[in-house]
Amino acid sequence: MTDDEQELGITESKSHNTGDWYAEVVRKAGLASYGPEGMSGFIVTRPRGYALWEAVQNALDAEFKDTGVQNAYFPVFIPESYLEREKDVVEGFDPEVAWVTQGGHEELDERLAVRPTSESIIAPYIAQWVRSHRDLPMRVNQWCSVVRWEATETKPFFRTKEFLWQEGHTAHETDEGAWEETMLRLDQYESLYEDVLAIPVLRGQKPPHDTFPGAKTTTTVEALMPDGKSVQGATSHHLGQSFAEAFDITFSDEQEEERVAHTTSWGVSWRCLGALIMTHSDEQGLVLPPTVAPTQVVVVPIWQSDTREEVLEYAEGVTAELEDAGISVELDDRDERNPGFKFNEHELNGVPLRIEIGPNEVDDEELTLVHRPDGESVVEDRDDVAETVERHFDEVYAKLYAAAEETLDGAVREADDRAEILGTLGRHGGYVETPWCGDVDCEAEIKEQIAAEIVMVPFEDDDELIGTDHEETCGVCGEPAERTAYFAKSY
Amino acid sequence: MTDDEQELGITESKSHNTGDWYAEVVRKAGLASYGPEGMSGFIVTRPRGYALWEAVQNALDAEFKDTGVQNAYFPVFIPESYLEREKDVVEGFDPEVAWVTQGGHEELDERLAVRPTSESIIAPYIAQWVRSHRDLPMRVNQWCSVVRWEATETKPFFRTKEFLWQEGHTAHETDEGAWEETMLRLDQYESLYEDVLAIPVLRGQKPPHDTFPGAKTTTTVEALMPDGKSVQGATSHHLGQSFAEAFDITFSDEQEEERVAHTTSWGVSWRCLGALIMTHSDEQGLVLPPTVAPTQVVVVPIWQSDTREEVLEYAEGVTAELEDAGISVELDDRDERNPGFKFNEHELNGVPLRIEIGPNEVDDEELTLVHRPDGESVVEDRDDVAETVERHFDEVYAKLYAAAEETLDGAVREADDRAEILGTLGRHGGYVETPWCGDVDCEAEIKEQIAAEIVMVPFEDDDELIGTDHEETCGVCGEPAERTAYFAKSY
Ligand SMILES: [Zn+2]
Ligand SMILES: [Zn+2]
Repeated sequence: MTDDEQELGITESKSHNTGDWYAEVVRKAGLASYGPEGMSGFIVTRPRGYALWEAVQNALDAEFKDTGVQNAYFPVFIPESYLEREKDVVEGFDPEVAWVTQGGHEELDERLAVRPTSESIIAPYIAQWVRSHRDLPMRVNQWCSVVRWEATETKPFFRTKEFLWQEGHTAHETDEGAWEETMLRLDQYESLYEDVLAIPVLRGQKPPHDTFPGAKTTTTVEALMPDGKSVQGATSHHLGQSFAEAFDITFSDEQEEERVAHTTSWGVSWRCLGALIMTHSDEQGLVLPPTVAPTQVVVVPIWQSDTREEVLEYAEGVTAELEDAGISVELDDRDERNPGFKFNEHELNGVPLRIEIGPNEVDDEELTLVHRPDGESVVEDRDDVAETVERHFDEVYAKLYAAAEETLDGAVREADDRAEILGTLGRHGGYVETPWCGDVDCEAEIKEQIAAEIVMVPFEDDDELIGTDHEETCGVCGEPAERTAYFAKSY
Repeated sequence: MTDDEQELGITESKSHNTGDWYAEVVRKAGLASYGPEGMSGFIVTRPRGYALWEAVQNALDAEFKDTGVQNAYFPVFIPESYLEREKDVVEGFDPEVAWVTQGGHEELDERLAVRPTSESIIAPYIAQWVRSHRDLPMRVNQWCSVVRWEATETKPFFRTKEFLWQEGHTAHETDEGAWEETMLRLDQYESLYEDVLAIPVLRGQKPPHDTFPGAKTTTTVEALMPDGKSVQGATSHHLGQSFAEAFDITFSDEQEEERVAHTTSWGVSWRCLGALIMTHSDEQGLVLPPTVAPTQVVVVPIWQSDTREEVLEYAEGVTAELEDAGISVELDDRDERNPGFKFNEHELNGVPLRIEIGPNEVDDEELTLVHRPDGESVVEDRDDVAETVERHFDEVYAKLYAAAEETLDGAVREADDRAEILGTLGRHGGYVETPWCGDVDCEAEIKEQIAAEIVMVPFEDDDELIGTDHEETCGVCGEPAERTAYFAKSY
């Protein structure tokens, strides 16, 4: 094997060594590099990785704007006293932050936190901008990076000291308005996962003891990873009136009465890229749905010296036609590489569809299309190539989604008592669904023994236990059950 | 006057008190707010201001991507030792930075700078990614914020401790390749100003003593502000091989020989928004070209109770048709405001085109269009409203550009000796064009007396002095002149 070939091979096993395999895919597919010396926990997002984030931004930002959200930008620093003010509201919210203590050659009078999240700087401005009910709903979003100084092992896109995200903050006249907002954003996150990233998710709310500090309800979409752990894919918080009261977000209603607003916040980070990479990729490298792939199609001409000219010309024609149709296509006409090398490279990089063109394809006015996820190869007519390719994009997407859905469906298991909960989680991972009394102690007990927690409680409308008059009993303690709980190990 | 009306009035004079007038426009048009207590020098970019930055991003990012640039994201922090490494290369480059010294509850071993610019963290990675001539040119860009701890008075978008920008960094095989890149980016910046922001610019290079530290050549586009000062609108640097040598950016050429790359960097910050706002706005408030206006058209129905229904229906039809054509339009059908108030408000907010619809317009199947910059009012047929509006957009754009061009043309004055240089700058501001010997002392002399400097030297091809065999003499010292210099006070 040459160096180049070694570079293209994934050596770790997805099923046996998921973490190392993931890190190898991220590195070899050129998605990210580790930060410089002295900056463990930081990553450099390389162009192919950043393009995935741009795809997420484009999809989500368009949805946000269609539904009344405006983007803004707030300072990267937050004075310590502002963070403290939030602490009073939401006891126990003490993110580990990076502190700026020197500006130029001077010591600062007050430390500035590099934003770990922006509630405490955005809320005072919303308070200032909202005067009357006519200013509501007010919806502000920002795309930015945040820093949380956690001393954990780095895992690109999943766990990094700095990460990219968006954070939306809204204010409403009524509790109902805030609740609708919370669910609208959760729907948009669900759609991001299911319609853009080809990842089915479970939706529900966090148990009361695990809501965002100060929030009334935290809603979540949860995605299952191949190692059987759950990823909190995005969260949308109904904050009730606690933040509005703390930050004086009030408005005069139609009767000119002063009232306290109801607020929400919601966010998704580049962790969704981690979920994307981990869910679909395999031991040949990165696998991406065509919806987000920076290069959607690669055209690989296969020639001998006597067929070079006709094959290349044909391949160029196909490429141009796809380009004109707005498809992101690359013609790989490098002389110095053979087709086998090219196949490996584009597989490693996750190009969803490969078009192979040799003398036979030229003679028969055909194309050979190969799907990245499973290597399925199909011969198609050359005519209407753009339409054909779009059809295959849909097929590739459907394959990825179906595989992930099958995994998810098979990973939700019921359990009725403690032994079964622990045994099932230990043997299979995934989600264990069990009736739950609502007591945090019952979660603590499981957590202690197997490091799994309640990642989600289905919404009331989806919860079969609601309305059964407490006939079921808690899988942990045996007391009457209030709700269904999903236990899982999580990222 | 009611409170509301006061809020809509600009009280400062653009010509007599440009700085205060500018600050008032920024605040009252809802573009930005000042940062919180304890954070002087920072601003909050409000949705209407941020939308302008998004318009700049969209225009420029598309150009960049069409010309081989890929976006990436590098950490917000840079270890002190990395900055030091750069200092060795480019003596005297010592931006005032904000230092992170604590992470969580621990003191850091090494201080981390909040990025003031990213050469020193991007170059080492480019060095790592570039191996062969096949990897070149390599072009990486990032949209981010940077922090420079300068203790000057805050002026939103012009002078802030944190600002948004893009920074592009490229590596090339040859000096010529790097030079072409430098000029390509300068062309794109010129086009941003002239074709998107309606601001004519002067293009050229910075005098040798004012190039970016370590650079071979710094090129610039300069825009004239209404107070007679020049704004450095964007810069594009040919860095030669100094950075490549310092950071080991080398590649093996076709003969497998190791060679040192040639690099460039180029950037534009939200200062271009400052130039945009300051150039076109007036004493009614913000004025924007339709190319960047978040709301391009406002439709204002004008009714009496007996005509309300028909007027509103007609206005809704017009609005819908414009929306369908992809025009950003707002129907202002608020009951609680009269048309005069609405006119003032939309003028303050810089909506480029207003459509007034009353019973007469409905009867005659017409529309009254009013241009924001000069209040010109035109009656047009209702048919083909989208085309009509697009035509008026072009007219509004042309008016703004023509006005700025006239100002610029009238502000470039020639001077042949010291007294004339000082006198002209003192009386008129603007640019003074003079033959220059090339000696930095001659600039220093002017700078001392009137705080003006050489903001630009035309490119060799544009410089009339090139090829005249030094017949002209330096306007300051009288020695033989090498180049033409443009003196101006600057932001
Ligand atoms: Zn229990
Ligand atoms: Zn001189």
